[in-house]
Amino acid sequence: MFAPLPSTIPAVSDNPITPAKIDLGKALFFDPRMSASGVFSCNSCHNLATGGDDNMPTSIGHGWQKGPRNSPTVLNSVFNEAQFWDGRAEDLKAQAKGPVQAGVEMANTPENVVATLNSMPQYVHWFKESFPDETDPVTFDNFAKAIEAYEATLTTPAPFDAWLNGDDNAMSAEQLAGLELFMDKGCASCHNGVNLGGNGYYPFGLIEKPGADILPEGDKGRYAVTETADDEYVFRASPLRNIDQTAPYFHSGLVWDLKVAVQIMGESQLGEDLSDDEADKIVAFLGSLTGEVPEVTYPVLPAETAATPRPTGEVK
Amino acid sequence: MFAPLPSTIPAVSDNPITPAKIDLGKALFFDPRMSASGVFSCNSCHNLATGGDDNMPTSIGHGWQKGPRNSPTVLNSVFNEAQFWDGRAEDLKAQAKGPVQAGVEMANTPENVVATLNSMPQYVHWFKESFPDETDPVTFDNFAKAIEAYEATLTTPAPFDAWLNGDDNAMSAEQLAGLELFMDKGCASCHNGVNLGGNGYYPFGLIEKPGADILPEGDKGRYAVTETADDEYVFRASPLRNIDQTAPYFHSGLVWDLKVAVQIMGESQLGEDLSDDEADKIVAFLGSLTGEVPEVTYPVLPAETAATPRPTGEVK
Repeated sequence: MFAPLPSTIPAVSDNPITPAKIDLGKALFFDPRMSASGVFSCNSCHNLATGGDDNMPTSIGHGWQKGPRNSPTVLNSVFNEAQFWDGRAEDLKAQAKGPVQAGVEMANTPENVVATLNSMPQYVHWFKESFPDETDPVTFDNFAKAIEAYEATLTTPAPFDAWLNGDDNAMSAEQLAGLELFMDKGCASCHNGVNLGGNGYYPFGLIEKPGADILPEGDKGRYAVTETADDEYVFRASPLRNIDQTAPYFHSGLVWDLKVAVQIMGESQLGEDLSDDEADKIVAFLGSLTGEVPEVTYPVLPAETAATPRPTGEVK
Repeated sequence: MFAPLPSTIPAVSDNPITPAKIDLGKALFFDPRMSASGVFSCNSCHNLATGGDDNMPTSIGHGWQKGPRNSPTVLNSVFNEAQFWDGRAEDLKAQAKGPVQAGVEMANTPENVVATLNSMPQYVHWFKESFPDETDPVTFDNFAKAIEAYEATLTTPAPFDAWLNGDDNAMSAEQLAGLELFMDKGCASCHNGVNLGGNGYYPFGLIEKPGADILPEGDKGRYAVTETADDEYVFRASPLRNIDQTAPYFHSGLVWDLKVAVQIMGESQLGEDLSDDEADKIVAFLGSLTGEVPEVTYPVLPAETAATPRPTGEVK
């Protein structure tokens, strides 16, 4: 039903992870010059200081525009079977290309990203080290692959992993009672696997559709990807690691209290009216999924040159 | 004329620097929840990854508004005799209170900052550790003092320091030739001391006033502080450490090329028409002022609670 985090960096498809690529990916992840304005980096909305997300209902991006959905955590995201709330990116290297180009997020273009990288000899050198067999390694594809390599390192071992690994004292009695409820009530039917979610698609409102204050009518979820009526209001089950660090909740980001979110899930997905005591215990269990964020040395990035495209905050 | 960086963290007035205070200050420096929107931290415009500034002509802030002046580097700023381009803050703890409250920057209020901090028990604990003698340590004054303590650690020893300290091989022949020109031409009359600047006020255009493409007429500099006619277009001499990492230049941020900036200074401040060769040498010397940024472990910040004020991007 569940699985602990692996003890080594997980492999990803078609992208061998090397120390050079991880370092390059880290630089790119933190570099605000990857956005048109120079304001936003990947880390802006997936902030490693605050649970790997940005703690807002929906992110603010280029031109102070609001994004359509709550920013999900980058932590442990490598274990999701697909990325974004609707699973429209098959992996992290596909995901990484999205926000950079989205007009309401970083509003950049692949050409401008590549021109920016090529303008700084240190970046060109890092790309050569990261993709040693390629004659022209500074590409948008490789930009995304390096970010994926870095993100694959962002895993957070938690008390629940220690417990799964055999340490009976890693979880408190209340957390264990919460785990029992989590399984008995049926939460684990969708929230299972390494990430306790992130690996299946379900209608939000399987039993009872929540109101527009939680499930705005305009966002039909996976329907936009598959155009299948069955996929209306279908979303990927949210992964639950570090969930108590990443309020507000749901794709709409409209619920701030984890206990309330648990109770909404009980009602809408399971038809279960969870008591305060039951919800408290489940929240305690969820706390056992909050892990240790890897120590990150903040990168020192290459300086711009005369050839570096200038930042622009202009909204097109 | 010059002085090397000290080998220890410099003392600041009325604010004993302790390890606890430095750690707290680092957390605050990187915390975007210190802004009303949750988008901007101190590090957004004074980014330790990119020379301690944001590499834009003027910063983009709350509501996508543009700040009036180029964001100066935080690196070594503790050695400036006063802060801001017009010196209107006497020290870093006074400076730290400005951008947090500026409507075009972080758009927050002292009350909301304190409420935000008080809502997270970990922050309250850190304030108690940092200000152990105070009964109510979570204050806006102490917020600023902790940030000052952290910023005082952000010093960057450079080859020029090694040379001043007696290592004859620390600078190249071209850099030494540049230093000679820097002194002979008169640059060092204003750019001297530990920071090669940051410690005196001079009219921009002492000899020849630059055009509005460099010196916009609307910004009268220190005149806004002193309301003295003599202070029209007067600015604090820019500190020059890490200057080759912090384009674009001048308070207006309208010049991207360091060599061009050097030539403009020669003309406007010294009446010197610096040749290409002379300017190249001075730029080489300025490169010897680029130092090693301290290794920074990216902080993991406390999670919000039910009591934490919600972020708002609303523009008042």
